[in-house]
Amino acid sequence: MTKRPALTAVVDALPATVPFVGPEAQQRASGRAFRARMGANESSFGPSPRVTRRMQEVAGDMWMYCDPDNYDLKQAAAAHHGVSPHNIVVGEGIDGLLGLLARMYVDVGTPVVTSLGAYPTFNFHIASVGGRLVELPYENDRESLDALLAAVRRENAPLVYLSNPDNPMGSWWEATEILRFIEALPETTMLVLDEAYGELGPASALPPIDVERVNVIRMRTFSKAYGLAGIRCGYAVGEKQVIADFEKIRNHYGVSRMAQIAGVEAITDQQWLQEVVARVDAGRRRIARIAEENGLKPLPSATNFVTIDCGSDGAFALKVLKEMLARDVFIRKPMAPGLDRCIRVSVGLDHELDIFAQELPAALVAARKG
Amino acid sequence: MTKRPALTAVVDALPATVPFVGPEAQQRASGRAFRARMGANESSFGPSPRVTRRMQEVAGDMWMYCDPDNYDLKQAAAAHHGVSPHNIVVGEGIDGLLGLLARMYVDVGTPVVTSLGAYPTFNFHIASVGGRLVELPYENDRESLDALLAAVRRENAPLVYLSNPDNPMGSWWEATEILRFIEALPETTMLVLDEAYGELGPASALPPIDVERVNVIRMRTFSKAYGLAGIRCGYAVGEKQVIADFEKIRNHYGVSRMAQIAGVEAITDQQWLQEVVARVDAGRRRIARIAEENGLKPLPSATNFVTIDCGSDGAFALKVLKEMLARDVFIRKPMAPGLDRCIRVSVGLDHELDIFAQELPAALVAARKG
Repeated sequence: MTKRPALTAVVDALPATVPFVGPEAQQRASGRAFRARMGANESSFGPSPRVTRRMQEVAGDMWMYCDPDNYDLKQAAAAHHGVSPHNIVVGEGIDGLLGLLARMYVDVGTPVVTSLGAYPTFNFHIASVGGRLVELPYENDRESLDALLAAVRRENAPLVYLSNPDNPMGSWWEATEILRFIEALPETTMLVLDEAYGELGPASALPPIDVERVNVIRMRTFSKAYGLAGIRCGYAVGEKQVIADFEKIRNHYGVSRMAQIAGVEAITDQQWLQEVVARVDAGRRRIARIAEENGLKPLPSATNFVTIDCGSDGAFALKVLKEMLARDVFIRKPMAPGLDRCIRVSVGLDHELDIFAQELPAALVAARKG
Repeated sequence: MTKRPALTAVVDALPATVPFVGPEAQQRASGRAFRARMGANESSFGPSPRVTRRMQEVAGDMWMYCDPDNYDLKQAAAAHHGVSPHNIVVGEGIDGLLGLLARMYVDVGTPVVTSLGAYPTFNFHIASVGGRLVELPYENDRESLDALLAAVRRENAPLVYLSNPDNPMGSWWEATEILRFIEALPETTMLVLDEAYGELGPASALPPIDVERVNVIRMRTFSKAYGLAGIRCGYAVGEKQVIADFEKIRNHYGVSRMAQIAGVEAITDQQWLQEVVARVDAGRRRIARIAEENGLKPLPSATNFVTIDCGSDGAFALKVLKEMLARDVFIRKPMAPGLDRCIRVSVGLDHELDIFAQELPAALVAARKG
């Protein structure tokens, strides 16, 4: 065997994995294009036309490096949330920020608490630094605040993940419950409150932002309601020392100049956001109706997708998923025990919902046979 | 003192720092725009017009996530270099890939060898994982292959950094020398061969790519000759298991859809690249003439900048730098002992070189007085 440079023990032990198989990979495998792209919780309504025009205007400027301070975008996000730019850090999507949080708070063997079936990329990043994941089951299709809290205390965990509204179930907690959870947390435990879908649910689910609180960091993104998943830009809001600590390790040139400019334009076009929110709401209701017409049970959603209980076990829902994929309809499904009885359908454009409605009955028949 | 979540010991010990102060930050501080932007080794000639048009065409598609496999860009880069896509990994600039390499090969206390005054962002990433930097002085304004090799052996270092052509000095080694260095390296030491400026120097400086070699990884970027610094995209070429190991920890959605599309278009427009290379060469010669007309000594350059020996010590060169900045001409300078006698001037557009030529004499007078 050839000698070669040795990986660190932590990295050596990891599998080489892509946490998500992208729709592009699925299309390459099938040799066919999806007729409906409703699987990645993207915003089919696109970015604001203002944002698109702005990106077109500045395309030729991309020879210049991005501002490593993300100054303009931090100003814009700070103004939007009524906080200081010192309370904002920008990253390559929430994913990038989660990776940094893992490195900031987690050593080899450090316990980290999350829910079984919650965001896999968070788990990926925790594993990448050798952290020990403690995963608590959902209860009634929501992340269980009580179980998370008990685990944090039992494990003395420095980091706990909670998404609200939740992916993959679409469920949410009201702000009062989130605040109760925060108050009960040890001060030495950082809550990663992932609000990627925050703009799409009821305002009552979002606690007021308290930037004095040293153990809560709120994650926001341009990938969902703002329709900029491809541009890779998210940000976190937190106490200023927590935010400053990101400077110790972040890739200062990680977020492109294009992303920073698009982000500024997007966050200042709240009218577009409100239009998207309304269209998402209409889309959710239509998906729910389609589900019900097929004898399935749509779960309430505060996101841009609807999770649908297929009324049987995980094996059946997996068959439904596969039948839909075979019909070139891109959707996904939760995989954790208990959640896996569901499929997850993002709000698409009207013609995509038409395709979904057309194909679902036959997919269910085939799944029941198979 | 409020209790708070504890950083890991490694991160806690780090300073919160931005490795480079961007020109935008300097402009914000002065309240004035630079008249000439010649400090960050960007390509003032911009991206290929084909690339700009393509970015404009796809701006509205940014609601879709990027392909986490970077499939198309890996195909294009592989075709360009005559290797397999399995030999290519794409990252958020070379910076992003350096950060991953640090995490892959470096533990707390691991020795890592580089040159004193070489790329600071590499050092930043090594420090971020607790690595111990062993920095060897340049010799005759080149990174010293002999000194690096001796240090690697002495320290039993798993990682050594070498840029060729070199930043900040513009110097280079011929491929024969690089190959001799590679042959002499322990098989258990990974050479990070940073070829960010690879397209801009003599072809004879680039060894043939050997993807069977398990301990060399070649770094390339779209930030320099391709004129896409702001889009944040670079790639590495290496042996397939080394490349696969990046999958264990990389942020799979870190490189934007825009960057991937721009990268494909850029690498397939080699005619534009050749035009840029010719213009850079002309610009280097003009900067050298201006330096000589002012009694300064331009160093030979294989990059898109010229490093100029100001003929005295670091304090004097720093004064020259400050005088140029005060005249709203953005340049930079090396800071390491011995190298710090120089300023570093990127090839700008003709009107920027005019401004540089106009302002340099007065700046030198002022620096000699100050």
